[in-house]
Amino acid sequence: MTRTTPKLLPEGLRDRLPEEAEAASRVTRALIDAMAGHGYRRIAPPIAEFRETLAGDAHDPASRDLLRFTDPVSRRTLAIRPDITRQVGRIATSRLSSAARPLRLSYAGQVVKLTATTLWPDREMMQVGAELIGNDSLSAVTEVLTVAVDALIAAGVTGITVDLTLPDLVDTLAATAFPLDADAIEAVKAELDAKDAGALAGLGAQAYLPLIAATGPFPKALDRLRAIDAGGVLASRIAALEALAASVGDRVTVTLDPTERHGFEYQSWIGFSIFVAGHAVTIGRGGSYAITHPDGRIEPAVGFSLYPDPLIGAGLGVEVNEARALFLPIGHDVSAAARLRSEGWVTIAALADSDDPQALGCTHKLAGGAAVSL
Amino acid sequence: MTRTTPKLLPEGLRDRLPEEAEAASRVTRALIDAMAGHGYRRIAPPIAEFRETLAGDAHDPASRDLLRFTDPVSRRTLAIRPDITRQVGRIATSRLSSAARPLRLSYAGQVVKLTATTLWPDREMMQVGAELIGNDSLSAVTEVLTVAVDALIAAGVTGITVDLTLPDLVDTLAATAFPLDADAIEAVKAELDAKDAGALAGLGAQAYLPLIAATGPFPKALDRLRAIDAGGVLASRIAALEALAASVGDRVTVTLDPTERHGFEYQSWIGFSIFVAGHAVTIGRGGSYAITHPDGRIEPAVGFSLYPDPLIGAGLGVEVNEARALFLPIGHDVSAAARLRSEGWVTIAALADSDDPQALGCTHKLAGGAAVSL
Repeated sequence: MTRTTPKLLPEGLRDRLPEEAEAASRVTRALIDAMAGHGYRRIAPPIAEFRETLAGDAHDPASRDLLRFTDPVSRRTLAIRPDITRQVGRIATSRLSSAARPLRLSYAGQVVKLTATTLWPDREMMQVGAELIGNDSLSAVTEVLTVAVDALIAAGVTGITVDLTLPDLVDTLAATAFPLDADAIEAVKAELDAKDAGALAGLGAQAYLPLIAATGPFPKALDRLRAIDAGGVLASRIAALEALAASVGDRVTVTLDPTERHGFEYQSWIGFSIFVAGHAVTIGRGGSYAITHPDGRIEPAVGFSLYPDPLIGAGLGVEVNEARALFLPIGHDVSAAARLRSEGWVTIAALADSDDPQALGCTHKLAGGAAVSL
Repeated sequence: MTRTTPKLLPEGLRDRLPEEAEAASRVTRALIDAMAGHGYRRIAPPIAEFRETLAGDAHDPASRDLLRFTDPVSRRTLAIRPDITRQVGRIATSRLSSAARPLRLSYAGQVVKLTATTLWPDREMMQVGAELIGNDSLSAVTEVLTVAVDALIAAGVTGITVDLTLPDLVDTLAATAFPLDADAIEAVKAELDAKDAGALAGLGAQAYLPLIAATGPFPKALDRLRAIDAGGVLASRIAALEALAASVGDRVTVTLDPTERHGFEYQSWIGFSIFVAGHAVTIGRGGSYAITHPDGRIEPAVGFSLYPDPLIGAGLGVEVNEARALFLPIGHDVSAAARLRSEGWVTIAALADSDDPQALGCTHKLAGGAAVSL
């Protein structure tokens, strides 16, 4: 799939041609249907809305993703949505604030980011996901992770790895078993990101060193985490990680990266990244978080987002057995053609004597009211 | 379906909640699948692109619809697409310029217009359509009109009226049977729009008067058009209108409004509007037109666009028999739940003892591996 020349389209925006567009449509249907099977009902927020709903102030990482513009009608700054999760949160705390909890919602739509990256050259991408609002217990996280895996498998994805993380782990340890000064916490997190044992030791954070090794495939990585004696602070987390891994471990590879922070700025006790064999980019991400109602009330939630475009670009959802295409000669039997369409044929009608069945991709033609191989 | 308060969303942009969002999804699938059955392959252009690709200069009516912004990456003016048809034309004359003709393409996506109208209060709407590129013959127009009607019927639409028009009729008559000064042509068109017989007579355009009466249901309106003696200039048009009406007349009401111009600024010899009983707005529009390749070559085309949102807002696509929802108690049999989902059940899992099956919309619960009515 070659990209449109830069002259025709802005950098990072491109056309999806039939094979890819149809694959995207099939994948989206499969994902949405799988989420619906678990009771997640679809909502569709607008493609653009007020800037301040889509991101906080300049310190909010999301604010860097916004493609903004002034709306001549409202005379306010709007942005094209770079993410649908926040829109779901807005809906859950406004029009659906009094809907029964737990509230299960799903979505699928285009999002646009301000800039592309080397790993992800598209600025527009499809985001599909589900949010469970009102509960962030282990049961809720287990359900959400199961739905994500079910959806990917239903869409035909293979080679899935789920990488579990504990977004508030360092904060928790720093406040309990392995005290750290407030100043040191960020430095320790940064060195854990860098997996730099020497620097950690230099910070006097030797207690955190074993976390670097507690990384990789289950159950080995979890055993290493278990070996850290943090006075029972980690017990419930370890039990939860074990239960989550067990819930999907027969269908996906489960790994642990307990201090991974990238992409988990808003997550609370648990997070997960989804990788697919052959793709360097993260295909999905999820975890627990909190949403704040206008009255200040805070509600727990769990959700995930999938970004299936790279999978589709690599062939996911492409029909292996193309629908059989039936050429309809000029003056054909219209009702026979309609009947064959209802049986699953794609019909291509001749409009001129020069129309060439083969050039139009036809495998059969209509003759005597039946499909005849060309 | 109440609208979100203006505080939360800009005027004309709104959220689709589950019932409506799911109905929109069902309607889109039905439309896309019906178009695919006739060989129209889906493409997906980006949600935004260079301003100049989406509209011409300030005289182009489309330029009034553009929600523009400066792209910090390309440092050029982009706009959110107010229409997908032009994007299809761009693709047909660039990446698909050497694809076999006739080229059949379909699309479905969100479009955003700068301003709302009283009749159409939403600025964001769904546009679904098909374009047949390389032919604008009667056969091509008949196919496109048939596809539009097939798609609407497949989506469950009833009470369809197709209103046929001849966008270049006045120009044709003015250049042949009923000569007009160049200055007078626009004035005559305006008075025909207003159906103002007195003003037409005042312009010395008495010959055009019968066009006002040639309006309304077939075949009466067509008989009145046929009665106009224009020296044979209208013969092929009348034959075409008759053939088009016959091709869909058993499934929809066909009317004629030969000089209707609104919405047909780009159409050539034939245009049609689609109305649905109970809706004042035009639900779809189509006709013949020309696309220009970068090398100056002009290619004929026919297409249609549908805007199904008002139909969905009125209940089109809403599931009458909601999927049966099965409550899964805590500690339920996971494989029985998966089996029931594969049989079409929607499952709602309990996450806490307090989760109320009825409040969560469940009609049944899982007990002993089977669905039991609540």
